[in-house]
Amino acid sequence: MKANFIIIGNELLNGKIKDLNTEILAKSLFSLGISLNKVQIIPDEQLSFKEAFTTSLNEGELIFISGGLGPTKDDLTKSFLANFYGESLVENEKAFETAKSHYQRAKREYDKELIHYHLLPTSFQPIYNPIGYAPGIYINKNQKQIFSLPGVPNEFEAMIKEEIMPRFLQPSGKHFKNIIIKTWKIPEAKIFTELCPNLWDELSSEGQVSSLPHIMGVDIGIFIEASTQEEINEKENKILFKISNGKLKEYIWHIGPEQLEEVIIKEAKAKNLKIGFAESCTGGLCASRITNFSGSSEIFWGSIVSYANEVKTNTLGVASETLKNYGAVSQETAEEMAIGALKQLGVDIVVTTTGIAGPGGGSKEKPVGTVGIGVANKQFSKGKIYHFTGNRIHLKQNFSEIALMTLLNQIRSH
Amino acid sequence: MKANFIIIGNELLNGKIKDLNTEILAKSLFSLGISLNKVQIIPDEQLSFKEAFTTSLNEGELIFISGGLGPTKDDLTKSFLANFYGESLVENEKAFETAKSHYQRAKREYDKELIHYHLLPTSFQPIYNPIGYAPGIYINKNQKQIFSLPGVPNEFEAMIKEEIMPRFLQPSGKHFKNIIIKTWKIPEAKIFTELCPNLWDELSSEGQVSSLPHIMGVDIGIFIEASTQEEINEKENKILFKISNGKLKEYIWHIGPEQLEEVIIKEAKAKNLKIGFAESCTGGLCASRITNFSGSSEIFWGSIVSYANEVKTNTLGVASETLKNYGAVSQETAEEMAIGALKQLGVDIVVTTTGIAGPGGGSKEKPVGTVGIGVANKQFSKGKIYHFTGNRIHLKQNFSEIALMTLLNQIRSH
Repeated sequence: MKANFIIIGNELLNGKIKDLNTEILAKSLFSLGISLNKVQIIPDEQLSFKEAFTTSLNEGELIFISGGLGPTKDDLTKSFLANFYGESLVENEKAFETAKSHYQRAKREYDKELIHYHLLPTSFQPIYNPIGYAPGIYINKNQKQIFSLPGVPNEFEAMIKEEIMPRFLQPSGKHFKNIIIKTWKIPEAKIFTELCPNLWDELSSEGQVSSLPHIMGVDIGIFIEASTQEEINEKENKILFKISNGKLKEYIWHIGPEQLEEVIIKEAKAKNLKIGFAESCTGGLCASRITNFSGSSEIFWGSIVSYANEVKTNTLGVASETLKNYGAVSQETAEEMAIGALKQLGVDIVVTTTGIAGPGGGSKEKPVGTVGIGVANKQFSKGKIYHFTGNRIHLKQNFSEIALMTLLNQIRSH
Repeated sequence: MKANFIIIGNELLNGKIKDLNTEILAKSLFSLGISLNKVQIIPDEQLSFKEAFTTSLNEGELIFISGGLGPTKDDLTKSFLANFYGESLVENEKAFETAKSHYQRAKREYDKELIHYHLLPTSFQPIYNPIGYAPGIYINKNQKQIFSLPGVPNEFEAMIKEEIMPRFLQPSGKHFKNIIIKTWKIPEAKIFTELCPNLWDELSSEGQVSSLPHIMGVDIGIFIEASTQEEINEKENKILFKISNGKLKEYIWHIGPEQLEEVIIKEAKAKNLKIGFAESCTGGLCASRITNFSGSSEIFWGSIVSYANEVKTNTLGVASETLKNYGAVSQETAEEMAIGALKQLGVDIVVTTTGIAGPGGGSKEKPVGTVGIGVANKQFSKGKIYHFTGNRIHLKQNFSEIALMTLLNQIRSH
């Protein structure tokens, strides 16, 4: 079973917003063993829609459409679908009742003349929207299931997870697994050439291999497919045996889909450690990344975001002399921030960041991309300088990545 | 002039990663007056590529391809292009020299047998990659310009901005502008029905109108296109005159493409205000959002991320009785956090967040999605409770949005 996805939206094509729905749909389908075959982002006009929709009907059994279902005149998806099937938009009793009750709850009156949530192409049915006003619409025709949903990401996500997955889709019977091997301290090209020249081919005999380079390392993915869970387990065991007996072993920091933040939370919890940050250049990003995951409150106590030097001295107790002699971006300041935050937050481990995210503020000695990373626990403290390249957003990301990697190392050696 | 974009990558289709390159490309083309016509995300296999590439050649003059240019065996784009044009992969002198010098700088040796950055389809030329190892490749054939670039977002972005835009693309001669009117405190459906029933049609006579609902409001976009800058200015003036004399006026918080963070930084700077946060449920996200923009260091002093109650009492001075009597998620705690952070950070305005991002931690009285927002300046302080719905990530985003909107209000009334 194959799925295609059509995203309608000029806002994506002129760069005003980012597409968030592909990831939501792809992950959900993946969990059911259904492949997402193609995604097309198109402008909201009839001809582009017709072409993309025809292609999608030819290629897959499931067609998802997002966007163009709101109350305004640029929301044309229902008309496109009605035109395509030679139907007109007619009042749907169920959609009308839902719209009315949504409006009642918001203490407003639903005006049929002005708002058109209750109009659907003749042979389509509404899909309940648990968050917003616009219903999705659905049809099962010629062995194709078509779902058209609002483009607002949290509405799209709620409808996929709460309505479509439980009520309309069944697991495909195929079993998928993506085994992910996370490495660091070795460049991508080196892994498959000098270190393990046969690894790619060996892994390929079990599944489809891919390699995804990151700031700090490389994720190797092996996508395995089988008709039973037993076969999946067998393939997985073979892969893990191969990996844990090869030269790559010492470069692996994690096996599994879990993100760095999740690994940190799990390992800190297992050792009953409280952690914290003091952040200058990352401006709260380290803390925000950790708190994106539930369970973080058991190990994460807080972060002192000390963007101004006054906060570094007053709240963290960094000595004015340190700032004057070595500068805010230095291993000395990074270390003193860590010592201060350890005390201020009352935690077991602190990691700190102080760097230059640019575009301004760089110098010959300390160019944009320079970052000091500090660590402290009750017995030990130190600071270290690293260098990265990229724009401000990338650099903040890179700085937070090295900080979290440093934290994981600290947790492991604790 | 129209552009098509093909993204090659199984990692996107199985939901492992998010597409970041469309936004980069779309924004860059938009600034040159070039429309991005369609984006296709496809798996990395020959047949899908051939079909997507053929469609793109039929539809536009510019074709961008991202992904599949790395050193590993799943990086097949060069072979796909060579096959399509009936060519083979041959050594390109320029690509070889660049690869060698990249490797020399990293103190490694470039091994032609193992690494294939120097091999290009016969009639293609390399494009310099200022960040990574893999060059892009380029051809101008039958009035079509084809650019194939690495998929890693910071490499893709650097190559578009530093190489392709200045060296290969000219402004189209067309002039584009997206006039963005940012509103709040009124639902999307109400704007174009009850409040201003004729607005949509009136704006449509100047350009293509779109409406994008957000957590806290609605952005109305008018995309105008003209052959001279004077015409653009004229249309823009007409639109602004219409808007500033209509009923929508009181719901507009900003006109322009600037994001909330940028408006905050600009207005705080104009009033010479220092700002700070104390964040519980947003876990540093408010601070991280502000520090994503350069210039933030002139107005943003810091944030106390007080995830644990101990940090709320010790660093922020929230009374234990307040936590005990009202709970951490309460207007009282939010307000006391603000008073404490104002003093601790030494700033003019503080905004705070304390809420329940879920999935656990909710109760009947305080369900997941409840957030207390506190504000304090030297004369005044208060706290207020709001409610949102969504998953943890959405809720953190929503909580930070109401916090930043509250901050903007505070700056304006200062």
